[in-house]
Amino acid sequence: MSNLFGSDLEIINVGISEFTESIIEKGAKVLNVAWSPPGGNAEVARSLSYLVNRPEVEKANTTAFAQYLSSKPCLVGLGPAKEVIPDLPERVILHAGPPILWENMCEPVKGAIIGACIFEKWAENYKTAEWLINSGEISFAPCHHYNAVGPMAGIISPSMPVWIIEDSARKTRAYSNLNEGLGKVLRFGANAPDVIEHLHWMQNVLAPALKVTLERLGPIELKPLMAMALHMGDEIHNRNAAASALFIKHLIPAALDAKLDNSVLSEIVKFINSNDHFFLNLSMSACKAMMDAAHGVPGSSLVTAMARNGVDFGIRVSGLGDKWYTSPAPLINGLFFPGYSAEDANPDLGDSCITETAGIGAFAMAASPAIVQFVGGSASDAIASTRQMEHITFSKNDAFTLPQLDFDATPAGIDIRKVIDTGIAPIINTGIAHREAGVGQIGAGITRAPIECFSQAIIELSEFFNMSNEI
Amino acid sequence: MSNLFGSDLEIINVGISEFTESIIEKGAKVLNVAWSPPGGNAEVARSLSYLVNRPEVEKANTTAFAQYLSSKPCLVGLGPAKEVIPDLPERVILHAGPPILWENMCEPVKGAIIGACIFEKWAENYKTAEWLINSGEISFAPCHHYNAVGPMAGIISPSMPVWIIEDSARKTRAYSNLNEGLGKVLRFGANAPDVIEHLHWMQNVLAPALKVTLERLGPIELKPLMAMALHMGDEIHNRNAAASALFIKHLIPAALDAKLDNSVLSEIVKFINSNDHFFLNLSMSACKAMMDAAHGVPGSSLVTAMARNGVDFGIRVSGLGDKWYTSPAPLINGLFFPGYSAEDANPDLGDSCITETAGIGAFAMAASPAIVQFVGGSASDAIASTRQMEHITFSKNDAFTLPQLDFDATPAGIDIRKVIDTGIAPIINTGIAHREAGVGQIGAGITRAPIECFSQAIIELSEFFNMSNEI
Repeated sequence: MSNLFGSDLEIINVGISEFTESIIEKGAKVLNVAWSPPGGNAEVARSLSYLVNRPEVEKANTTAFAQYLSSKPCLVGLGPAKEVIPDLPERVILHAGPPILWENMCEPVKGAIIGACIFEKWAENYKTAEWLINSGEISFAPCHHYNAVGPMAGIISPSMPVWIIEDSARKTRAYSNLNEGLGKVLRFGANAPDVIEHLHWMQNVLAPALKVTLERLGPIELKPLMAMALHMGDEIHNRNAAASALFIKHLIPAALDAKLDNSVLSEIVKFINSNDHFFLNLSMSACKAMMDAAHGVPGSSLVTAMARNGVDFGIRVSGLGDKWYTSPAPLINGLFFPGYSAEDANPDLGDSCITETAGIGAFAMAASPAIVQFVGGSASDAIASTRQMEHITFSKNDAFTLPQLDFDATPAGIDIRKVIDTGIAPIINTGIAHREAGVGQIGAGITRAPIECFSQAIIELSEFFNMSNEI
Repeated sequence: MSNLFGSDLEIINVGISEFTESIIEKGAKVLNVAWSPPGGNAEVARSLSYLVNRPEVEKANTTAFAQYLSSKPCLVGLGPAKEVIPDLPERVILHAGPPILWENMCEPVKGAIIGACIFEKWAENYKTAEWLINSGEISFAPCHHYNAVGPMAGIISPSMPVWIIEDSARKTRAYSNLNEGLGKVLRFGANAPDVIEHLHWMQNVLAPALKVTLERLGPIELKPLMAMALHMGDEIHNRNAAASALFIKHLIPAALDAKLDNSVLSEIVKFINSNDHFFLNLSMSACKAMMDAAHGVPGSSLVTAMARNGVDFGIRVSGLGDKWYTSPAPLINGLFFPGYSAEDANPDLGDSCITETAGIGAFAMAASPAIVQFVGGSASDAIASTRQMEHITFSKNDAFTLPQLDFDATPAGIDIRKVIDTGIAPIINTGIAHREAGVGQIGAGITRAPIECFSQAIIELSEFFNMSNEI
């Protein structure tokens, strides 16, 4: 004891950092280790200890993860949502994220819904669209409820063309809308006449041309193309430059053979070429198909969806059916385009974090140092992000390897138990929308899923087992 | 002294590693540091010490390097070699590497020359072509003597279409042939009728279509495109997948607008699409333009060309005029395709190491871990290769940044003094040709420039200064 106090003290403080202050004052060295009790409350901690190392959960997760790995998302075509998405009601508009009422929606989503009403010719202008919505004539549902996903506002209305992704391993399907390009676009809530006109061009010119092209090509397996893009600097969420280029390269010869009108071909090639995010919606719907494959395994603690509607952030868990566990959507730690700041930002929005759920996006950040550089980080930060996600995932996905990690595979299968146990929230790459409709993207950055969603889910998963045991 | 021998000895041995053996026998610890005297002979060492820190050399290198940095290679068109390359004699065939006589050439180069004679309709078959060559009717010259470069055999005959690269900063031009694709190709010495027919298709269908397309596009600056490819996993020598995709993406809209016949367009798109090395020859000729910009600065010790003809490896130095310093071409430390081994390999061949001379290829290996993986290395080996080249280069090229090094720039401007001083030879990524004509590529790997070329050059550079001083 006297030895201890006689020597220079070197102290490690675990948890509440304020304890270090008085030590520093006295001139001693102290290292602070960030730590907080799992879940932050007793019920969460009890649920966690109940579920940790539980063989039924391990087994369920093994099953769910194997299903995720075995899925083979293929692009098989495209068509109007009302014709290709099963059981879509007549006057429904699908949106990103968990369910939300019209009156609670954020402005970019409202603006995009108004735009969709005008696009569908249900209304002539903002006023009549709003009247229609308030009269209850239009219903709303999350894209996810129809096996679909959409970036940002994520609006899909019945006449919009959607990509059809078939998991050839189990013949199930997922869908997404087509990427509109940059500038003033519906997904950021813009609904001016030129935005609607562009959507009609996509419906009447782009989609039919793509349809005949895809018919010539037959099914296109998407995982190999995504794997290539990961070797070419994309994380296939916020950066899709390589994937888009590879996809175009694949399309063009078939488009030429399809004998499309030359001026149409020229128009659509220029449109796709001008948008490095053209592949994003395909990446998202491929990830949706992979996660749907893992969904619905009783007892599994793996996350099968993360999504935001601009107000709430929600997750779904494989073993917990179709219920959403929600929490307020986080703000984004990002860089803003000149003239904008955090005050202008809408909270996190869009279904695009289905990519992180499937192990790409920020989970594959090591593959794409350009992304962290964009928000002020370095190549080693990118590697650290991917490595950190290994602490909260079930395993790795050998289909997606990362050159910068010596071709180690990307971490995948977010386990709500590990999120609660470590306090590490899933990291997400995302764009930042202006909080007013139609202004568009004002920045990009990195955010984290709110831990609260995982806390709710872990309590219900432990209740599921308690109930199973009682029966 | 008695203290020293009383304690456990820890020894560092510098140089000849055999000295460690007796120490290890006695049970002491020894660390061996690889080191050998610079240049290996007294004249080289004297020349080095004469040139090191010499202000005239530093100044000349600063000038040469600034000229290299300021060059702006632009693709401005293409046309038959005889029409676009100034002063090209009528019956000349250009080949890769330093000068070499017909009787000393390796088989792949001979086979390719025979093919070129048939392609030019100077001969009908192998026999008549050989007779023609032996009669002295055909002359040979290195591509480099006409500001041109070609991969592998590097054959350019007068009717072949060549890319025209203009350095828009100084209006000088560089040239290269067009990439033929994979399989049985002239550059590996194949000369069967289908190979010749394909060359005629390139001459009569591909080249005219590319010509009108490029006319619509105007000059295409190549450095920005190369910089993008370095961010997408290419080192733009042995991997050109991203650069080729970006180039195609750039060409297609203009090709559509040029109203080419649809079936021609379809044919050429399929051809370019099928070859991930299509961009290689553009990368090489862009590098040639950059290095020509740095060439001819009196007193400069920077290397402006490295090239191999399959028998000799040669370098040119900025301050030493057009003389080649040669040494036997090295064998390649590589991986072989199934069924082939080192015994089947031709020594190193081609002008393509102009890319390493210009700071890309193996010098930018950090950007392309896929390349080292292909030959059994890791991502950290890739980074180490680039970092090692920093020891033998004058500076870095900010136009080419590498994501994996936190966007640090690629090392460039090989200094013969530093090569001799450190004993570190420039590293080169390369394909391996079968030693028989026409078998084609049998592997790929990594090699090093022979130090001997640099030893010869450093002696002559110090003589240049001695002579200048005497005058």
